[in-house]
Amino acid sequence: MGHTFPGATVPFGMVQLSPDTDTIPYAVNGKYNPDVYKYCAGYQYEDPTIVGFSHTHFSGTGHSDLGDILIMPTSGKLQLNPGIASNPKSGFRSAYSHENEIAKPNYYSVLLDDHQILAELTTTTRVGIHKYTFSEQDSANIILDLVSGIYNYDGKNVNTYVRVVDAFHIVGFRQTAGWAKNRTVYFAIEFSKPIKSYGYDDFQLKKVYQGFWRKFNLKDNFPEMSASQLRAFFEFDLDASKELLLKVSLSNVNMEGALLNMVTETPNWSFDSYRKAGEALWQAELNKYEVEMLNEGDLINFYTAVYHTCLGPTVYQDVSGSYRGLDFADHRNPDQQINYTTFSLWDTYRALHPLFNLVQRKRNADMVLSMMAHQEQSAHRMLPVWSHYANENWCMIGYHSVSVIADAYNKGLEGIDYNKALDACVQTARTRYFDGIGSYMDLGYVAEDQSSSSVSKTLEYAYDDWCIAQLALGLKRMDIYEEFSKRSSAYKNVFDPKSGFMRARLKSGSFIEKFDPLETHQAGYIEGNAWNYSLYVPHQVDSMIALMGGKKRFATHLDSLFTMQLADKYFEHTEDITREGIMGSYVHGNEPSHHVIYLFDWVGRPDLTQKYIRQVLRTKYLPKIDGLSGNDDCGQMSAWYIFTSLGFYPVCPGSDDYIIGAPLVRSAKIHLENGADITIEVKDQSEKNLFVKAVYLNGKRMKDFRLNYQHLKDGAHLRFEMSAKPSVTF
Amino acid sequence: MGHTFPGATVPFGMVQLSPDTDTIPYAVNGKYNPDVYKYCAGYQYEDPTIVGFSHTHFSGTGHSDLGDILIMPTSGKLQLNPGIASNPKSGFRSAYSHENEIAKPNYYSVLLDDHQILAELTTTTRVGIHKYTFSEQDSANIILDLVSGIYNYDGKNVNTYVRVVDAFHIVGFRQTAGWAKNRTVYFAIEFSKPIKSYGYDDFQLKKVYQGFWRKFNLKDNFPEMSASQLRAFFEFDLDASKELLLKVSLSNVNMEGALLNMVTETPNWSFDSYRKAGEALWQAELNKYEVEMLNEGDLINFYTAVYHTCLGPTVYQDVSGSYRGLDFADHRNPDQQINYTTFSLWDTYRALHPLFNLVQRKRNADMVLSMMAHQEQSAHRMLPVWSHYANENWCMIGYHSVSVIADAYNKGLEGIDYNKALDACVQTARTRYFDGIGSYMDLGYVAEDQSSSSVSKTLEYAYDDWCIAQLALGLKRMDIYEEFSKRSSAYKNVFDPKSGFMRARLKSGSFIEKFDPLETHQAGYIEGNAWNYSLYVPHQVDSMIALMGGKKRFATHLDSLFTMQLADKYFEHTEDITREGIMGSYVHGNEPSHHVIYLFDWVGRPDLTQKYIRQVLRTKYLPKIDGLSGNDDCGQMSAWYIFTSLGFYPVCPGSDDYIIGAPLVRSAKIHLENGADITIEVKDQSEKNLFVKAVYLNGKRMKDFRLNYQHLKDGAHLRFEMSAKPSVTF
Repeated sequence: MGHTFPGATVPFGMVQLSPDTDTIPYAVNGKYNPDVYKYCAGYQYEDPTIVGFSHTHFSGTGHSDLGDILIMPTSGKLQLNPGIASNPKSGFRSAYSHENEIAKPNYYSVLLDDHQILAELTTTTRVGIHKYTFSEQDSANIILDLVSGIYNYDGKNVNTYVRVVDAFHIVGFRQTAGWAKNRTVYFAIEFSKPIKSYGYDDFQLKKVYQGFWRKFNLKDNFPEMSASQLRAFFEFDLDASKELLLKVSLSNVNMEGALLNMVTETPNWSFDSYRKAGEALWQAELNKYEVEMLNEGDLINFYTAVYHTCLGPTVYQDVSGSYRGLDFADHRNPDQQINYTTFSLWDTYRALHPLFNLVQRKRNADMVLSMMAHQEQSAHRMLPVWSHYANENWCMIGYHSVSVIADAYNKGLEGIDYNKALDACVQTARTRYFDGIGSYMDLGYVAEDQSSSSVSKTLEYAYDDWCIAQLALGLKRMDIYEEFSKRSSAYKNVFDPKSGFMRARLKSGSFIEKFDPLETHQAGYIEGNAWNYSLYVPHQVDSMIALMGGKKRFATHLDSLFTMQLADKYFEHTEDITREGIMGSYVHGNEPSHHVIYLFDWVGRPDLTQKYIRQVLRTKYLPKIDGLSGNDDCGQMSAWYIFTSLGFYPVCPGSDDYIIGAPLVRSAKIHLENGADITIEVKDQSEKNLFVKAVYLNGKRMKDFRLNYQHLKDGAHLRFEMSAKPSVTF
Repeated sequence: MGHTFPGATVPFGMVQLSPDTDTIPYAVNGKYNPDVYKYCAGYQYEDPTIVGFSHTHFSGTGHSDLGDILIMPTSGKLQLNPGIASNPKSGFRSAYSHENEIAKPNYYSVLLDDHQILAELTTTTRVGIHKYTFSEQDSANIILDLVSGIYNYDGKNVNTYVRVVDAFHIVGFRQTAGWAKNRTVYFAIEFSKPIKSYGYDDFQLKKVYQGFWRKFNLKDNFPEMSASQLRAFFEFDLDASKELLLKVSLSNVNMEGALLNMVTETPNWSFDSYRKAGEALWQAELNKYEVEMLNEGDLINFYTAVYHTCLGPTVYQDVSGSYRGLDFADHRNPDQQINYTTFSLWDTYRALHPLFNLVQRKRNADMVLSMMAHQEQSAHRMLPVWSHYANENWCMIGYHSVSVIADAYNKGLEGIDYNKALDACVQTARTRYFDGIGSYMDLGYVAEDQSSSSVSKTLEYAYDDWCIAQLALGLKRMDIYEEFSKRSSAYKNVFDPKSGFMRARLKSGSFIEKFDPLETHQAGYIEGNAWNYSLYVPHQVDSMIALMGGKKRFATHLDSLFTMQLADKYFEHTEDITREGIMGSYVHGNEPSHHVIYLFDWVGRPDLTQKYIRQVLRTKYLPKIDGLSGNDDCGQMSAWYIFTSLGFYPVCPGSDDYIIGAPLVRSAKIHLENGADITIEVKDQSEKNLFVKAVYLNGKRMKDFRLNYQHLKDGAHLRFEMSAKPSVTF
């Protein structure tokens, strides 16, 4: 349920080429099909068959899209339907065995049992390279399935097109109206052998108006076809090597762009050289961290996490610098600036972008510029909420782009016009028709009878507004600072002193009556309950603690979160987390709790922070197939792991503070882009010594639990001294 | 059944803005709906209601598409469905009366009875300007219907989009997969008053997957929406003038292009100045011909015909020079070169393009370049067959682009690389998979068991091949000349000496057995029967006559075509012509016969040519609402009228000969683009004097019935002497 994929990609690659093990529809007869949730990334380990290899995947999302341009090599009799998993021989899909499967950075291979084809995949940023080794020299087929996709449903494919350019090249596109309402992925394909014959699945075509195209034989080398549901097949004669290679390049602009991406990135047929070049890119990413861990499992976990933090946001721009914007116009970035897509911001503002501000500063600056371009191109003039492929999909809540921007500002990212960025933040935060903002601006809180999930929204807006205020303060734009400072206290307006929790209010001012702090599926909250969400005031933790009865009471309250026995009834119907993701009522498998463990620091109980950190690191991330306790959420779960195992965490992004936890590493070096290193030394690290006795920054003992970015940016030496004995100071 | 439209347009305008009187679907439950045929141009005079005003229309086609971006002004209660014709109050459509309807060049107006709104329309090349005068100052609504279209069916609209840019501007697009499989029309709209409120028909939207857009109120000023079936409404407060004006600009490239077209062509709100500027363009077109006729009806007919010859092909290019090509890429023409679309070539190669070679030489050269660009962009590397909006729709048969190119060459059109054009012709004519060409190349005729309508195809290919040969001869490319000269005799291979008709053959060589020369719906022919099609050898008429028994026998045979009594059974189920379009078995309402009347000249019976010409001109074109005897076919019916009433006709386009008929004009001056005039003087023209006694070219009596382009191109004086007495010589 991590919803990650095992396929080949380079860091932040546009092409993420991976096997899809089934093609479950999002809806059947207009009704949501809960089975689809498993296939957010296209792959489920227990599935017995592979339908094909598609070129775009989200890593770790909880809703989905993509799975574009599915390729399947087959041998023997041509079959144009995918068939069913229980009888792979009924279609072009194939059984496979995990024994014959290899997944490495920028390399995936599997033996397709039904076709006796060894499939190997590698990529460049914009091109997928397929190497298929057949067991027989003849009857080699390639299925190009433009119907297939992730979270498909009837009507999602609005148009697909294939054009055979010559015996070696085809181009085309797939246009969908799904989570992204207006998305077109253009492609170009080059084959290493000439096409012998080709055609289309005319069963699909006959279902629609064909006009005068009906005069042609669409199965007999007809050079172009267009339909909402289009599959094509290509047949080849092989030589003695029995190998057939494909390059499949993508573009989000047009077919010419895809061809240019291909000739630029993959000028020859050297599969191994592309594989090695991509491996080298991965090695460079992994090498940014040099860590020693207590055991092999931790080491696997750590570098798996690093890997997962480099799968998104992804490059959304051709080699020419062009990309299609939200305004449907083609934009061209200056050299050295890359446009990125896939901003799962409700997740990634928390730790992923702050992590990028340490180790991916150039990329993160480009991501901020991409978010600002989104805002300029948007009909709403809003920064992205959850954006992919130049589409706002409006998933989840908040306007957390502002947190990413404030964090970038406070951590000194260069090349960004921050005054313009602040304007974009303000414009976004004043969009009255968006998700209760009007109510929030009028009442000081989102009224549940005006917009649902009102508590979650109020709390997150208050935090976002604090980010805007910080940015305005830095830029000395005091009117904005004051407006948004005021708004940033809105969390107080949903605190119910009687219950001691943040609780939904109506427009009338009264709290809603029905209330169970542990119930996730009740009015006021989204993907969380009152217990979890009430702890969400990352920008004013002290004030929150005071509201909730002061430090002592808060410490007990917070500890009970981890120790309570949660009744099963509270866990039913929750798709985004697993049973294993829960400790008491603490839900590590989803984001609203990601800062919570660190709150003990504020009430003089860092020992509890330290204790629960070790538990989470060791039980919620496991070095096995189903090792994640929830969706990886585009790297957020993994970024939490990286920060936390290094010993600190950005509880309040937008500030320049990190909060000290307890390291899992035995030692670490983080190589910054400016050449400096953050060195982490951990004395007496062990399974038992999970408590921090003392922390030294550049040799000086720290007295506070806050570690400032200014102390890290030009390199630092952090020394943790560990102990088996809990301590309320360090 | 002329399938013309009464709306406003400038000559060859991209925008052809006209009322649609109904929106009959092409198919109901997957079954063809024959009622749709009436609505090829969106308008039927007898209809009691108007659904709205859309911006694109074909003039005179027999299959259809377009009807994009339908606008309807309404007053009173907002209604978001069109309602039904028998009860216009059930929706936004309106009853109207022809008494309150005015249709003039570049101006259309009507009173919308149900809403008491005076609608006035005018255009520039790329912008429709709407002026609505309401009877009340408030409750003014505009419906923007992106669902509506001509020849719509379920699934034809694949995607539509609306974005409200500010209080005065909206942009969007309509993407369809119909006759043109991949067509997107982008638009921009400017209102003269600020939008008060707006929204969308959420009934339509709720039928599809909405993703997280469901969190918004789509009826309450939500600034963008996308769906396959989308209607939007806009509400306005008016001032005391009670007027609301709209500019609606189109682009085939993108929304930016539509905005640029608007600001360039319509910088202000002066409806009258746009109307007058367009009128002046029309006046310039009509002024190219100065004719005197025998009566007012003829005069109306003549200039109506001129009007209809200037409605297509239409400009398909933004003011920037950009257009979207068949390869889905954006192309930019050099200054002074215009890309055109809508090539109904099976119709228009006959007389419309030859007419353009007299009076629209610059435009026709650009049309040839547009056809060549089509060929370069096409997956098939074929010149257009029937092309619109950068889509080949494959309607009808032949590859008559080659005729247009050969005619352009022989009539000296400049600015065309004719060697490249010849290559395009040859490539087209050798496309084996297209409509029996493979069979034709192998056997010397299209075998009916390999490709249907085989006789029609064989005859038209033979003529087209002759055109290619002539072009090759002129360019001294003798291998091509010989190949295609040989192919141009293929008509002989389908002549059946036993029946005396052109008759379908099988691959085995034998003629098909079932045969009735008058039956239109039999194997071998398309939109014609053996009787009509057997006369189709325009390039080798003498040889055809010899095949058919010599001149004397042919003269009798041909005359019987006009005098026979055609049984009703032959006329049933034929949609492209009216009963009134037939004389004997001569069908003037469709194209295969358009050269036939002139064939009497070859057998010494010009008197019969002359006699039947006058009958056709006077009975098949009438100065009344239903005056055309068949679809105008993008100007071909009208071009026939113009040539024939001037006294000559291009029986074999691609040659530089015209064939002398008999004028209907009393006198005529045709102003050529080079400043020269063709002057036609008709002595003793009258109702009775319909026979030609003598013809003088520049004072010299003509002895042949062929008039050569070389004699006309720098101006000429033609003098016809008429008589009531038939004569077999002139």
